[in-house]
Amino acid sequence: MKVLVLGVDGYIGWPLALRLLSRGHQVSGADSFFTRKRVKEVSSDSALPIQSFSRRNSFLRDTTGKEIEFFRGDVSDPDFIYDMISETEPDAIVHLAEQRSAPYSMLGLKQASETMQKNIISTMNLIYAVKDIVPESHILKLGTMGEYGTPNVDIPEGFFEVEFNGRKDYLPFPKNAGSWYHWTKVHDSNNLMFANRVWGTRITDVMQGVVYGTRTADIVDANQFTRFDIDEVWGTALNRFCAQAIASLPITPYGKGGQTRGFLSLEDSITCLTIGLEKPPAKGEYRVFNQFDQHYSVMELALKVKEVYEKEYGHKAEIKHVPNPRVEKEEHYYKPESRKLRELGYKPQGDLQKDLVRIMEDLSGYRDRIEKLKQVIMPKTVWEKSSGFSH
Amino acid sequence: MKVLVLGVDGYIGWPLALRLLSRGHQVSGADSFFTRKRVKEVSSDSALPIQSFSRRNSFLRDTTGKEIEFFRGDVSDPDFIYDMISETEPDAIVHLAEQRSAPYSMLGLKQASETMQKNIISTMNLIYAVKDIVPESHILKLGTMGEYGTPNVDIPEGFFEVEFNGRKDYLPFPKNAGSWYHWTKVHDSNNLMFANRVWGTRITDVMQGVVYGTRTADIVDANQFTRFDIDEVWGTALNRFCAQAIASLPITPYGKGGQTRGFLSLEDSITCLTIGLEKPPAKGEYRVFNQFDQHYSVMELALKVKEVYEKEYGHKAEIKHVPNPRVEKEEHYYKPESRKLRELGYKPQGDLQKDLVRIMEDLSGYRDRIEKLKQVIMPKTVWEKSSGFSH
Repeated sequence: MKVLVLGVDGYIGWPLALRLLSRGHQVSGADSFFTRKRVKEVSSDSALPIQSFSRRNSFLRDTTGKEIEFFRGDVSDPDFIYDMISETEPDAIVHLAEQRSAPYSMLGLKQASETMQKNIISTMNLIYAVKDIVPESHILKLGTMGEYGTPNVDIPEGFFEVEFNGRKDYLPFPKNAGSWYHWTKVHDSNNLMFANRVWGTRITDVMQGVVYGTRTADIVDANQFTRFDIDEVWGTALNRFCAQAIASLPITPYGKGGQTRGFLSLEDSITCLTIGLEKPPAKGEYRVFNQFDQHYSVMELALKVKEVYEKEYGHKAEIKHVPNPRVEKEEHYYKPESRKLRELGYKPQGDLQKDLVRIMEDLSGYRDRIEKLKQVIMPKTVWEKSSGFSH
Repeated sequence: MKVLVLGVDGYIGWPLALRLLSRGHQVSGADSFFTRKRVKEVSSDSALPIQSFSRRNSFLRDTTGKEIEFFRGDVSDPDFIYDMISETEPDAIVHLAEQRSAPYSMLGLKQASETMQKNIISTMNLIYAVKDIVPESHILKLGTMGEYGTPNVDIPEGFFEVEFNGRKDYLPFPKNAGSWYHWTKVHDSNNLMFANRVWGTRITDVMQGVVYGTRTADIVDANQFTRFDIDEVWGTALNRFCAQAIASLPITPYGKGGQTRGFLSLEDSITCLTIGLEKPPAKGEYRVFNQFDQHYSVMELALKVKEVYEKEYGHKAEIKHVPNPRVEKEEHYYKPESRKLRELGYKPQGDLQKDLVRIMEDLSGYRDRIEKLKQVIMPKTVWEKSSGFSH
């Protein structure tokens, strides 16, 4: 199968490309290095050192004889995406090339609008390029479990039976996201659902939980590391907690820490995406996967990190509740369904205890790097106060 | 009250400004003349001749001693909207300044993306400008009943009680729009709901039906006419049918004509918007109005236009079903609720028979103009075939 990975330089894009290559697929990829640039702008860096994309690709060629056909460019540019899809004629396109930071999107109007434009327009470009050039191809799009928010009912996989005033219909489950970033994913999902309705495009819309981890089965050498962000803007909860422990900083759940979310290991994420690609939707099908392994409260995870760190390293770890910068419920019901991927063969390999040991082991080799990033690990952005355009 | 009307040169913006002035409010307004320009681009024109904005404003000053403080510019430019709101410090802002044509949004990627950008970014600019400069002000935003699509259950006003797997919550009703244009309105609604959640902004989100008519109580002279679009791209069903009858063209319902929508007269639209402004939401409130008078199927309206025309003008009118360019159900359940505006005092004045007589009377004075537009009145765009970026 020929797969085009948009965002191939990213946390998920890179290990996905490795997996697809090792499974015998032909992989091309695009990246604008937007995340590398934006992470630098907040004076941060990947906690694990990563090579330039061309060096990564050289290492891949030298060790496996395979490489990724790479296109440098921005998928919010329609010419770039049309030309690339004409040239590669992929069977499937994985869209991971969006602005992916919720805190970044909440910094102010400029960042909010940039996130809206980049994310929505890239998906529109992809919809039209597929329709015009490779209408049988499968779009696998990365969304987020955060699209649903935290309703007081179970969360189905995309659609559910509604009963209202005595009548019934099968409708999209109402979304209720918690940041501009998360809303762009909702807008994308809606646009994809509509494209499928008008043109019958094959679409898998992945509502993914929070991914954690440094490794997949294909990452066996430091030269193959994928980026690992730990700062307030670009890092995510569990990965950040591990880095805080390793840097002897307090572990900082936001507010009460009762916020519950679906989580999955990087290995499981790559497995799920690969299943989605290798078992594509039928012509005319739009399907939604809720992609996660387990759900945890943020406080449970903070305690788990503390426990593992103290056991493995023999030092005390501190948990420090910090004021929640986000506008979200800190105690709530949470029961999302996640059946479809399991029905297609997904068997979660995540083992939180072992995974945390491995993450900390990888990070502890780069303690100096992480300690230099201390200033950007602790939270500062407050969403309610996110500033306007000219301020 | 000081009201800023974005899109003050438009079909609804102009008569709304007249009404607000006549009720003693202070009115400022903005327009980029986007609609005038785009209508020209499809070789069309308003069926009723309208003056330039400055002449309209002069006529207003000469006849009433009042005028609109006018700002020419594009609300998708954040500097423009920040400066204008700083200068005018309005108590309420009515946002009517979006790309409003569903067929235009479906022409191809360029128009689809332009509609996404212009509409979503203008609303983002407005959200931040209000938060930063006039946080107590009320945003009244024009959405559309088309955001809901045509579910097989009743349509509530924005929110409803969900029961799923034995638990309950009160959630946004799922949207299911039928064109990129309609989806931008959904995205705006979601963004406004989120702004209200984070910053407590007072918001009225109006799900408006299809508006018809040439007159309001304030339009008593041809110098006060508001634009009246009848072409395939910029016109709307009932107004177009009237023009077709007057121009001795067939009346063209799409497909079977069973598509049912909420409709209201221009007079009723202006009345509802005025009620929304004069009875604003509380601080922290986001409210949704379903704003229409009656619902009709497209075929009912075609027959009604035929009947009125034949009775009034003594000539035969022909109804010709044309292939439906849209992707929509042509027979479906439709029962939207519309209570909130009535509870606030809205008493519909629309009388379809009388309103149609009046529209035809106004149009028949400009039969020559309309006959020149024959080429653009008949439908040609086919949404399933809407073209890509470079084609």
